[in-house]
Amino acid sequence: MAQQLEPIARMVAQLSRLPGIGQKSAQRLAYHIIGMPLEDVRELATAVYQGRKAIRYCEVCGNYATDRLCDICADERRQNGQICVVRDPRDVAAIERMRDFRGTYHVLHGTLSPMDGVGPEDIRIKELLSRLQDDSVKEIILATNPDIEGEATAAYIARLVKPMGLLVTRIAHGVPVGSDLEYADEITLSKAMEGRREM
Amino acid sequence: MAQQLEPIARMVAQLSRLPGIGQKSAQRLAYHIIGMPLEDVRELATAVYQGRKAIRYCEVCGNYATDRLCDICADERRQNGQICVVRDPRDVAAIERMRDFRGTYHVLHGTLSPMDGVGPEDIRIKELLSRLQDDSVKEIILATNPDIEGEATAAYIARLVKPMGLLVTRIAHGVPVGSDLEYADEITLSKAMEGRREM
Repeated sequence: MAQQLEPIARMVAQLSRLPGIGQKSAQRLAYHIIGMPLEDVRELATAVYQGRKAIRYCEVCGNYATDRLCDICADERRQNGQICVVRDPRDVAAIERMRDFRGTYHVLHGTLSPMDGVGPEDIRIKELLSRLQDDSVKEIILATNPDIEGEATAAYIARLVKPMGLLVTRIAHGVPVGSDLEYADEITLSKAMEGRREM
Repeated sequence: MAQQLEPIARMVAQLSRLPGIGQKSAQRLAYHIIGMPLEDVRELATAVYQGRKAIRYCEVCGNYATDRLCDICADERRQNGQICVVRDPRDVAAIERMRDFRGTYHVLHGTLSPMDGVGPEDIRIKELLSRLQDDSVKEIILATNPDIEGEATAAYIARLVKPMGLLVTRIAHGVPVGSDLEYADEITLSKAMEGRREM
């Protein structure tokens, strides 16, 4: 047994493909798993596989769903005329955590990035435009990330949507609540000044 | 969807039970897995479950095995009369990596620890003694860890085995190769002095 047993080696190889898990951690995890009761390992493996299998994308907004529509698109009370455009389903989860927004979402599944060869047809912009045929839509809130790709994507969508007579807004840039001005970068600070409001 | 979808929540819960994976990492892993092709997730889950299922303990030495005997115990050429006693199968793997030792192993699956209620009947000492009935055994090499429990376990086994007329040895303590004397602790240094050899 100069080599590792094949079932262990395969487990290590699979685990080490996960992000943030190197060869050493994968080995440590594999040994831990081998020491676990078989029933517990079955539960773990089932939760991973069946979990992945149960998740699909909402046919309307592209968010994670277990059904044709996600819980938000399926909820009549959320049809308030606002659509919040985000990059991916994790962003939906983040905004939902604040429990403030009562509209629906549109998940682009990416942002424009000419450098990486990601153009408008590679993200769910077409699907967004077709949702706008519906008269009930009043406002598009662009909540892509405040980075180069996110800004470019927001600008691109704004240019397409504004001529349709809809209100198009962008989430505010500024200093994060609870942070220290001293450590804010200049661009954030200048955006925070620019976006100042009367108190 | 103020809450996370149930299949995702379950996946996160299962992943966060693994050592070194907190709530945040489990979430990051779960989102990564949900973005993976279903076929790849099937391979991952299968490698974990089937890997765990394929592993059992060698009936002779207690090492990991895929059969009744581990590869080492099944190898006639390894029956050289030396048995190296270690705490767990990971230690076997570590010693095998050095490709020097040509005998067999005995895995205790633990070390004596009165504080944790681990006594001689809780680790595979009985099984070791029964292997010593075989005349071909000449030397017992005690390779438990150089910590309190490991030393106590080695001393306990030595006391049992020596009256049987077998050679009982303990792996050497000393300064690790490639390390810096300056950073060695006093006990290691004094053991290294004590175990010095003529050159």
